[in-house]
Amino acid sequence: MTTQSDSTIEITAFNWVPPFAAGLVRDLRVRWALEEAGLSYRARLLDVGSERPADYYREQPFGQVPCYREGDLRLFETGAIVQHIGEKDERLLPRDPVGRARAIQWSYAALNSVEPALQNLTLIDVFYADQEWAKLRRPGAADFARLKLQRVADWLGDSEWLEDRFTIGDLMMVTVLRILRHTELVGERRNLAGYLARGEARPAFQRALAAQLRDFENRDAA
Amino acid sequence: MTTQSDSTIEITAFNWVPPFAAGLVRDLRVRWALEEAGLSYRARLLDVGSERPADYYREQPFGQVPCYREGDLRLFETGAIVQHIGEKDERLLPRDPVGRARAIQWSYAALNSVEPALQNLTLIDVFYADQEWAKLRRPGAADFARLKLQRVADWLGDSEWLEDRFTIGDLMMVTVLRILRHTELVGERRNLAGYLARGEARPAFQRALAAQLRDFENRDAA
Repeated sequence: MTTQSDSTIEITAFNWVPPFAAGLVRDLRVRWALEEAGLSYRARLLDVGSERPADYYREQPFGQVPCYREGDLRLFETGAIVQHIGEKDERLLPRDPVGRARAIQWSYAALNSVEPALQNLTLIDVFYADQEWAKLRRPGAADFARLKLQRVADWLGDSEWLEDRFTIGDLMMVTVLRILRHTELVGERRNLAGYLARGEARPAFQRALAAQLRDFENRDAA
Repeated sequence: MTTQSDSTIEITAFNWVPPFAAGLVRDLRVRWALEEAGLSYRARLLDVGSERPADYYREQPFGQVPCYREGDLRLFETGAIVQHIGEKDERLLPRDPVGRARAIQWSYAALNSVEPALQNLTLIDVFYADQEWAKLRRPGAADFARLKLQRVADWLGDSEWLEDRFTIGDLMMVTVLRILRHTELVGERRNLAGYLARGEARPAFQRALAAQLRDFENRDAA
Protein backbone atom coordinates (compact mmCIF):
# COMPACT_ATOMS: atom_id res chain seq x y z
CA MET A 1 0.00 0.00 0.00
CA THR A 2 1.83 3.09 -1.17
CA THR A 3 0.62 6.59 -0.65
CA GLN A 4 -2.14 7.61 -3.05
CA SER A 5 -2.90 11.19 -4.01
CA ASP A 6 -6.66 10.57 -4.07
CA SER A 7 -6.90 8.83 -0.71
CA THR A 8 -9.57 10.05 1.72
CA ILE A 9 -7.02 9.89 4.56
CA GLU A 10 -4.43 12.66 4.76
CA ILE A 11 -1.56 13.03 7.19
CA THR A 12 0.98 15.81 7.60
CA ALA A 13 4.70 15.05 7.57
CA PHE A 14 7.93 16.88 6.82
CA ASN A 15 9.51 17.17 3.38
CA TRP A 16 12.96 16.75 4.95
CA VAL A 17 14.60 16.45 8.39
CA PRO A 18 18.24 16.26 9.53
CA PRO A 19 19.76 12.75 9.47
CA PHE A 20 19.46 12.24 13.26
CA ALA A 21 15.67 12.48 12.92
CA ALA A 22 15.14 10.63 9.65
CA GLY A 23 13.12 7.50 10.37
CA LEU A 24 12.09 8.79 13.79
CA VAL A 25 9.56 11.51 12.92
CA ARG A 26 6.25 10.65 14.47
CA ASP A 27 4.23 10.35 11.28
CA LEU A 28 6.03 6.98 11.04
CA ARG A 29 3.67 5.63 13.70
CA VAL A 30 0.59 6.64 11.75
CA ARG A 31 2.01 5.40 8.44
CA TRP A 32 2.78 2.07 10.14
CA ALA A 33 -0.73 1.70 11.55
CA LEU A 34 -2.24 2.53 8.17
CA GLU A 35 0.01 -0.04 6.49
CA GLU A 36 -0.96 -2.72 9.03
CA ALA A 37 -4.60 -1.98 8.32
CA GLY A 38 -4.09 -1.88 4.54
CA LEU A 39 -5.37 1.70 4.26
CA SER A 40 -4.00 4.10 1.69
CA TYR A 41 -3.26 7.71 2.58
CA ARG A 42 -1.69 10.83 1.19
CA ALA A 43 0.93 13.00 2.86
CA ARG A 44 0.75 16.78 3.06
CA LEU A 45 4.36 17.84 3.48
CA LEU A 46 5.55 20.76 5.60
CA ASP A 47 8.95 22.40 5.69
CA VAL A 48 10.59 21.61 9.03
CA GLY A 49 12.71 24.74 8.98
CA SER A 50 9.92 27.22 8.21
CA GLU A 51 7.37 28.81 10.49
CA ARG A 52 4.17 26.82 10.47
CA PRO A 53 1.28 28.54 8.69
CA ALA A 54 -0.69 30.36 11.42
CA ASP A 55 -3.77 28.21 10.82
CA TYR A 56 -1.75 25.04 11.32
CA TYR A 57 -1.95 25.62 15.07
CA ARG A 58 -5.71 25.14 14.87
CA GLU A 59 -5.01 21.68 13.48
CA GLN A 60 -2.07 20.89 15.75
CA PRO A 61 -1.82 23.23 18.76
CA PHE A 62 1.82 22.28 19.33
CA GLY A 63 2.88 22.84 15.72
CA GLN A 64 4.11 19.28 15.26
CA VAL A 65 3.47 16.49 12.77
CA PRO A 66 1.48 14.44 12.09
CA CYS A 67 -2.07 15.70 11.80
CA TYR A 68 -4.69 13.31 10.49
CA ARG A 69 -7.74 14.13 8.37
CA GLU A 70 -10.50 11.78 7.35
CA GLY A 71 -13.79 13.33 6.31
CA ASP A 72 -15.02 15.50 9.18
CA LEU A 73 -12.43 14.13 11.56
CA ARG A 74 -9.26 16.02 12.34
CA LEU A 75 -6.90 14.54 14.88
CA PHE A 76 -3.45 15.17 16.26
CA GLU A 77 -1.42 13.12 18.79
CA THR A 78 -0.07 9.88 17.43
CA GLY A 79 -1.53 7.85 20.30
CA ALA A 80 -5.03 9.02 19.46
CA ILE A 81 -4.56 8.66 15.71
CA VAL A 82 -3.15 5.14 15.96
CA GLN A 83 -5.95 4.15 18.33
CA HIS A 84 -8.49 5.57 15.87
CA ILE A 85 -6.97 3.50 13.07
CA GLY A 86 -7.00 0.51 15.41
CA GLU A 87 -10.76 0.87 15.79
CA LYS A 88 -11.03 0.03 12.10
CA ASP A 89 -9.04 -3.20 12.23
CA GLU A 90 -8.90 -5.83 14.94
CA ARG A 91 -5.43 -6.85 13.79
CA LEU A 92 -4.34 -3.65 15.53
CA LEU A 93 -6.86 -3.43 18.37
CA PRO A 94 -8.57 -6.57 19.74
CA ARG A 95 -12.36 -6.56 19.85
CA ASP A 96 -12.70 -8.32 23.22
CA PRO A 97 -13.04 -5.69 25.97
CA VAL A 98 -10.12 -6.83 28.12
CA GLY A 99 -7.70 -7.25 25.22
CA ARG A 100 -8.80 -3.91 23.84
CA ALA A 101 -8.27 -2.06 27.11
CA ARG A 102 -4.88 -3.69 27.64
CA ALA A 103 -3.71 -2.66 24.17
CA ILE A 104 -4.77 0.94 24.79
CA GLN A 105 -3.02 0.77 28.15
CA TRP A 106 0.29 -0.08 26.48
CA SER A 107 -0.15 2.73 24.00
CA TYR A 108 -0.42 5.18 26.88
CA ALA A 109 2.42 3.43 28.72
CA ALA A 110 4.76 3.81 25.76
CA LEU A 111 3.98 7.52 25.52
CA ASN A 112 3.78 8.48 29.18
CA SER A 113 5.78 5.94 31.24
CA VAL A 114 8.63 5.28 28.79
CA GLU A 115 9.03 7.93 26.10
CA PRO A 116 9.71 10.96 28.33
CA ALA A 117 12.77 9.31 29.91
CA LEU A 118 14.13 8.18 26.53
CA GLN A 119 13.38 11.48 24.86
CA ASN A 120 15.09 13.35 27.68
CA LEU A 121 18.31 11.40 27.16
CA THR A 122 18.12 11.85 23.42
CA LEU A 123 17.63 15.61 23.68
CA ILE A 124 20.71 15.79 25.90
CA ASP A 125 22.75 13.83 23.34
CA VAL A 126 21.45 15.53 20.21
CA PHE A 127 20.77 19.14 21.16
CA TYR A 128 22.61 19.92 24.39
CA ALA A 129 25.70 17.71 24.38
CA ASP A 130 28.10 20.66 24.62
CA GLN A 131 26.30 22.37 27.48
CA GLU A 132 27.64 22.04 31.00
CA TRP A 133 24.31 21.03 32.56
CA ALA A 134 23.91 18.27 29.99
CA LYS A 135 27.34 16.81 30.76
CA LEU A 136 26.53 16.80 34.48
CA ARG A 137 23.04 15.41 33.96
CA ARG A 138 23.67 12.74 31.35
CA PRO A 139 24.64 9.89 33.73
CA GLY A 140 21.47 10.34 35.78
CA ALA A 141 19.32 10.68 32.67
CA ALA A 142 20.85 7.49 31.23
CA ASP A 143 20.22 5.63 34.49
CA PHE A 144 16.59 6.71 34.44
CA ALA A 145 16.20 5.58 30.82
CA ARG A 146 17.80 2.24 31.74
CA LEU A 147 15.37 1.79 34.62
CA LYS A 148 12.40 2.30 32.31
CA LEU A 149 13.85 -0.11 29.74
CA GLN A 150 14.45 -2.69 32.45
CA ARG A 151 10.83 -2.46 33.59
CA VAL A 152 9.63 -3.11 30.06
CA ALA A 153 12.16 -5.93 29.62
CA ASP A 154 11.08 -7.51 32.92
CA TRP A 155 7.46 -7.39 31.85
CA LEU A 156 8.22 -8.81 28.43
CA GLY A 157 10.34 -11.74 29.57
CA ASP A 158 10.41 -14.25 26.73
CA SER A 159 7.13 -13.13 25.23
CA GLU A 160 6.89 -12.07 21.65
CA TRP A 161 4.70 -9.02 22.32
CA LEU A 162 3.59 -7.06 25.39
CA GLU A 163 0.32 -9.00 25.54
CA ASP A 164 -0.53 -12.28 23.80
CA ARG A 165 -0.51 -10.78 20.29
CA PHE A 166 0.68 -7.70 18.37
CA THR A 167 -1.42 -4.58 19.05
CA ILE A 168 -1.22 -0.80 18.83
CA GLY A 169 0.57 -0.99 22.17
CA ASP A 170 3.50 -2.76 20.54
CA LEU A 171 3.42 -0.40 17.60
CA MET A 172 3.80 2.56 19.94
CA MET A 173 6.39 0.90 22.20
CA VAL A 174 8.60 -0.17 19.29
CA THR A 175 8.63 3.35 17.88
CA VAL A 176 9.49 4.69 21.33
CA LEU A 177 12.40 2.27 21.75
CA ARG A 178 13.77 3.41 18.39
CA ILE A 179 14.40 6.85 19.86
CA LEU A 180 17.51 5.40 21.53
CA ARG A 181 19.01 4.02 18.32
CA HIS A 182 22.07 6.26 18.84
CA THR A 183 22.86 4.36 22.08
CA GLU A 184 23.43 0.75 23.18
CA LEU A 185 20.77 0.87 25.88
CA VAL A 186 18.15 -1.26 24.16
CA GLY A 187 20.80 -3.68 22.87
CA GLU A 188 22.00 -4.26 26.45
CA ARG A 189 18.81 -6.25 27.04
CA ARG A 190 18.61 -9.28 24.77
CA ASN A 191 14.86 -9.73 24.97
CA LEU A 192 14.19 -6.05 24.39
CA ALA A 193 16.52 -5.98 21.40
CA GLY A 194 14.69 -9.00 19.97
CA TYR A 195 11.34 -7.32 20.56
CA LEU A 196 12.47 -4.17 18.76
CA ALA A 197 13.82 -6.22 15.87
CA ARG A 198 10.54 -8.17 15.63
CA GLY A 199 8.60 -4.95 15.36
CA GLU A 200 10.91 -3.43 12.78
CA ALA A 201 10.83 -6.63 10.70
CA ARG A 202 7.10 -6.38 10.08
CA PRO A 203 6.46 -5.66 6.41
CA ALA A 204 4.06 -2.86 7.31
CA PHE A 205 6.78 -1.15 9.36
CA GLN A 206 9.22 -1.46 6.50
CA ARG A 207 6.76 0.08 4.06
CA ALA A 208 6.01 2.92 6.46
CA LEU A 209 9.69 3.66 7.02
CA ALA A 210 10.41 3.60 3.30
CA ALA A 211 7.53 6.01 2.66
CA GLN A 212 8.78 8.52 5.24
CA LEU A 213 12.31 8.41 3.86
CA ARG A 214 11.06 8.63 0.28
CA ASP A 215 9.34 11.92 1.06
CA PHE A 216 12.70 13.27 2.23
CA GLU A 217 14.49 12.06 -0.88
CA ASN A 218 11.97 13.75 -3.11
CA ARG A 219 13.01 17.13 -1.78
CA ASP A 220 16.69 16.26 -2.11
CA ALA A 221 16.04 15.43 -5.75
CA ALA A 222 14.08 18.60 -6.42
CA MET B 1 -20.04 8.80 46.21
CA THR B 2 -17.52 7.84 48.86
CA THR B 3 -15.30 4.82 48.68
CA GLN B 4 -17.07 1.58 49.53
CA SER B 5 -15.34 -1.50 50.84
CA ASP B 6 -17.60 -3.85 48.84
CA SER B 7 -17.29 -2.08 45.51
CA THR B 8 -16.43 -4.18 42.46
CA ILE B 9 -13.93 -1.55 41.35
CA GLU B 10 -10.59 -1.41 43.16
CA ILE B 11 -7.75 1.05 42.68
CA THR B 12 -4.34 1.20 44.30
CA ALA B 13 -3.14 4.36 46.01
CA PHE B 14 -0.64 5.34 48.69
CA ASN B 15 -1.41 5.45 52.41
CA TRP B 16 0.70 8.62 52.71
CA VAL B 17 2.98 10.82 50.62
CA PRO B 18 5.14 13.85 51.45
CA PRO B 19 3.30 17.21 51.39
CA PHE B 20 4.71 18.25 47.99
CA ALA B 21 2.91 15.27 46.43
CA ALA B 22 -0.33 15.26 48.42
CA GLY B 23 -3.18 16.01 46.04
CA LEU B 24 -1.03 15.27 43.00
CA VAL B 25 -0.70 11.48 43.13
CA ARG B 26 -2.12 10.03 39.97
CA ASP B 27 -4.89 7.96 41.53
CA LEU B 28 -6.59 11.38 41.80
CA ARG B 29 -7.35 11.19 38.08
CA VAL B 30 -9.06 7.85 38.41
CA ARG B 31 -10.95 8.85 41.54
CA TRP B 32 -12.14 11.97 39.70
CA ALA B 33 -13.36 10.03 36.68
CA LEU B 34 -15.19 7.57 38.93
CA GLU B 35 -16.81 10.43 40.82
CA GLU B 36 -17.92 12.09 37.58
CA ALA B 37 -19.49 8.79 36.52
CA GLY B 38 -21.06 8.18 39.94
CA LEU B 39 -19.24 4.87 40.41
CA SER B 40 -18.12 3.67 43.82
CA TYR B 41 -14.70 2.10 44.35
CA ARG B 42 -12.40 0.88 47.06
CA ALA B 43 -8.76 1.81 47.52
CA ARG B 44 -6.00 -0.73 48.19
CA LEU B 45 -3.33 1.32 49.90
CA LEU B 46 0.41 0.81 49.47
CA ASP B 47 3.27 2.23 51.50
CA VAL B 48 5.14 4.76 49.35
CA GLY B 49 8.41 4.25 51.24
CA SER B 50 8.47 0.44 51.08
CA GLU B 51 9.56 -1.86 48.29
CA ARG B 52 6.59 -2.91 46.22
CA PRO B 53 5.58 -6.55 46.68
CA ALA B 54 7.32 -8.47 43.87
CA ASP B 55 4.01 -9.46 42.28
CA TYR B 56 2.92 -5.83 42.11
CA TYR B 57 5.13 -5.42 39.04
CA ARG B 58 2.89 -7.90 37.21
CA GLU B 59 0.03 -5.48 37.86
CA GLN B 60 1.99 -2.28 37.25
CA PRO B 61 5.30 -2.89 35.46
CA PHE B 62 6.63 0.51 36.57
CA GLY B 63 5.73 0.01 40.23
CA GLN B 64 3.51 3.09 40.36
CA VAL B 65 -0.06 3.81 41.42
CA PRO B 66 -2.83 3.54 40.47
CA CYS B 67 -3.74 0.08 39.25
CA TYR B 68 -7.37 -0.60 38.43
CA ARG B 69 -9.29 -3.85 38.87
CA GLU B 70 -12.81 -4.58 37.76
CA GLY B 71 -13.77 -8.23 37.35
CA ASP B 72 -11.35 -9.80 34.89
CA LEU B 73 -9.91 -6.47 33.86
CA ARG B 74 -6.66 -5.19 35.29
CA LEU B 75 -5.34 -1.90 33.99
CA PHE B 76 -2.56 0.51 34.72
CA GLU B 77 -1.79 3.93 33.15
CA THR B 78 -4.18 6.67 34.17
CA GLY B 79 -4.88 7.62 30.55
CA ALA B 80 -6.14 4.13 29.77
CA ILE B 81 -8.06 3.79 33.03
CA VAL B 82 -9.80 7.13 32.67
CA GLN B 83 -10.66 6.32 29.05
CA HIS B 84 -12.08 2.96 30.17
CA ILE B 85 -14.26 4.72 32.74
CA GLY B 86 -15.28 7.21 30.05
CA GLU B 87 -16.58 4.33 27.93
CA LYS B 88 -19.17 3.78 30.66
CA ASP B 89 -20.50 7.33 30.75
CA GLU B 90 -20.98 9.79 27.93
CA ARG B 91 -20.66 12.68 30.36
CA LEU B 92 -16.94 11.84 30.25
CA LEU B 93 -16.57 10.57 26.70
CA PRO B 94 -18.97 11.69 23.94
CA ARG B 95 -20.70 8.97 21.95
CA ASP B 96 -20.45 10.69 18.56
CA PRO B 97 -17.34 9.44 16.74
CA VAL B 98 -15.69 12.81 16.13
CA GLY B 99 -16.30 14.11 19.65
CA ARG B 100 -15.10 10.83 21.08
CA ALA B 101 -11.87 10.82 19.07
CA ARG B 102 -11.17 14.46 19.93
CA ALA B 103 -11.60 13.78 23.65
CA ILE B 104 -9.20 10.84 23.49
CA GLN B 105 -6.79 13.04 21.54
CA TRP B 106 -6.69 15.58 24.38
CA SER B 107 -6.10 12.84 26.91
CA TYR B 108 -3.01 11.78 24.98
CA ALA B 109 -2.00 15.41 24.44
CA ALA B 110 -2.10 16.13 28.17
CA LEU B 111 0.09 13.12 28.89
CA ASN B 112 2.53 13.25 26.00
CA SER B 113 2.68 16.83 24.67
CA VAL B 114 2.31 18.73 27.96
CA GLU B 115 3.07 16.65 31.05
CA PRO B 116 6.70 15.73 30.28
CA ALA B 117 7.75 19.40 30.09
CA LEU B 118 5.89 20.28 33.29
CA GLN B 119 7.09 17.20 35.12
CA ASN B 120 10.66 17.90 34.09
CA LEU B 121 10.53 21.37 35.66
CA THR B 122 8.89 20.03 38.78
CA LEU B 123 11.50 17.31 39.25
CA ILE B 124 14.20 19.97 38.99
CA ASP B 125 12.48 22.07 41.65
CA VAL B 126 11.52 19.28 44.03
CA PHE B 127 14.27 16.69 43.78
CA TYR B 128 17.33 18.30 42.22
CA ALA B 129 17.19 21.97 43.24
CA ASP B 130 20.58 21.87 44.98
CA GLN B 131 22.40 20.17 42.11
CA GLU B 132 24.56 22.21 39.79
CA TRP B 133 23.05 20.83 36.58
CA ALA B 134 19.57 21.70 37.82
CA LYS B 135 20.52 25.30 38.56
CA LEU B 136 21.99 25.61 35.06
CA ARG B 137 19.08 23.88 33.38
CA ARG B 138 16.13 25.43 35.20
CA PRO B 139 15.73 28.55 33.02
CA GLY B 140 15.58 26.46 29.84
CA ALA B 141 13.24 23.92 31.42
CA ALA B 142 10.95 26.73 32.60
CA ASP B 143 10.93 28.27 29.13
CA PHE B 144 9.96 24.94 27.61
CA ALA B 145 7.15 24.50 30.14
CA ARG B 146 5.95 28.05 29.36
CA LEU B 147 5.91 27.27 25.64
CA LYS B 148 3.72 24.22 26.20
CA LEU B 149 1.37 26.20 28.46
CA GLN B 150 1.14 28.97 25.88
CA ARG B 151 0.17 26.50 23.17
CA VAL B 152 -2.65 25.17 25.35
CA ALA B 153 -3.71 28.70 26.28
CA ASP B 154 -3.71 29.76 22.62
CA TRP B 155 -5.87 26.79 21.71
CA LEU B 156 -8.25 27.40 24.60
CA GLY B 157 -8.79 31.12 23.98
CA ASP B 158 -12.00 32.11 25.76
CA SER B 159 -13.50 28.63 25.63
CA GLU B 160 -14.65 26.89 28.75
CA TRP B 161 -13.14 23.51 27.84
CA LEU B 162 -10.71 22.20 25.22
CA GLU B 163 -13.57 21.11 22.97
CA ASP B 164 -17.23 22.18 23.18
CA ARG B 165 -17.89 20.37 26.47
CA PHE B 166 -16.07 18.78 29.41
CA THR B 167 -14.47 15.41 28.58
CA ILE B 168 -11.76 13.07 29.78
CA GLY B 169 -9.37 15.31 27.85
CA ASP B 170 -10.07 18.18 30.25
CA LEU B 171 -9.87 15.86 33.23
CA MET B 172 -6.39 14.82 32.21
CA MET B 173 -5.23 18.32 31.21
CA VAL B 174 -6.41 19.88 34.49
CA THR B 175 -4.55 17.29 36.54
CA VAL B 176 -1.44 17.89 34.43
CA LEU B 177 -1.61 21.67 34.95
CA ARG B 178 -1.82 21.11 38.70
CA ILE B 179 1.72 19.69 38.64
CA LEU B 180 2.98 23.29 38.46
CA ARG B 181 1.08 24.48 41.54
CA HIS B 182 4.41 25.39 43.19
CA THR B 183 5.04 27.96 40.43
CA GLU B 184 3.25 30.97 38.91
CA LEU B 185 3.43 29.63 35.37
CA VAL B 186 -0.22 28.69 34.95
CA GLY B 187 -1.35 31.85 36.76
CA GLU B 188 0.59 33.98 34.25
CA ARG B 189 -2.07 33.10 31.67
CA ARG B 190 -5.49 34.36 32.71
CA ASN B 191 -7.49 31.97 30.55
CA LEU B 192 -5.46 28.97 31.61
CA ALA B 193 -5.79 29.87 35.28
CA GLY B 194 -9.55 30.14 34.79
CA TYR B 195 -9.63 26.78 33.04
CA LEU B 196 -7.73 25.13 35.88
CA ALA B 197 -10.03 26.73 38.46
CA ARG B 198 -13.10 25.54 36.53
CA GLY B 199 -11.84 22.00 36.57
CA GLU B 200 -10.94 22.06 40.24
CA ALA B 201 -14.32 23.56 41.14
CA ARG B 202 -16.23 20.55 39.83
CA PRO B 203 -17.86 18.70 42.74
CA ALA B 204 -16.51 15.38 41.47
CA PHE B 205 -12.96 16.74 41.56
CA GLN B 206 -13.47 18.02 45.09
CA ARG B 207 -14.75 14.65 46.26
CA ALA B 208 -11.84 12.86 44.59
CA LEU B 209 -9.27 15.18 46.15
CA ALA B 210 -10.85 14.82 49.58
CA ALA B 211 -10.79 11.03 49.26
CA GLN B 212 -7.09 10.96 48.37
CA LEU B 213 -6.19 13.25 51.26
CA ARG B 214 -8.43 11.32 53.65
CA ASP B 215 -6.47 8.14 52.95
CA PHE B 216 -3.29 9.96 54.01
CA GLU B 217 -4.88 11.27 57.19
CA ASN B 218 -5.98 7.80 58.20
CA ARG B 219 -2.36 6.71 58.44
CA ASP B 220 -1.44 9.84 60.36
CA ALA B 221 -4.16 9.01 62.86
CA ALA B 222 -3.15 5.37 63.21
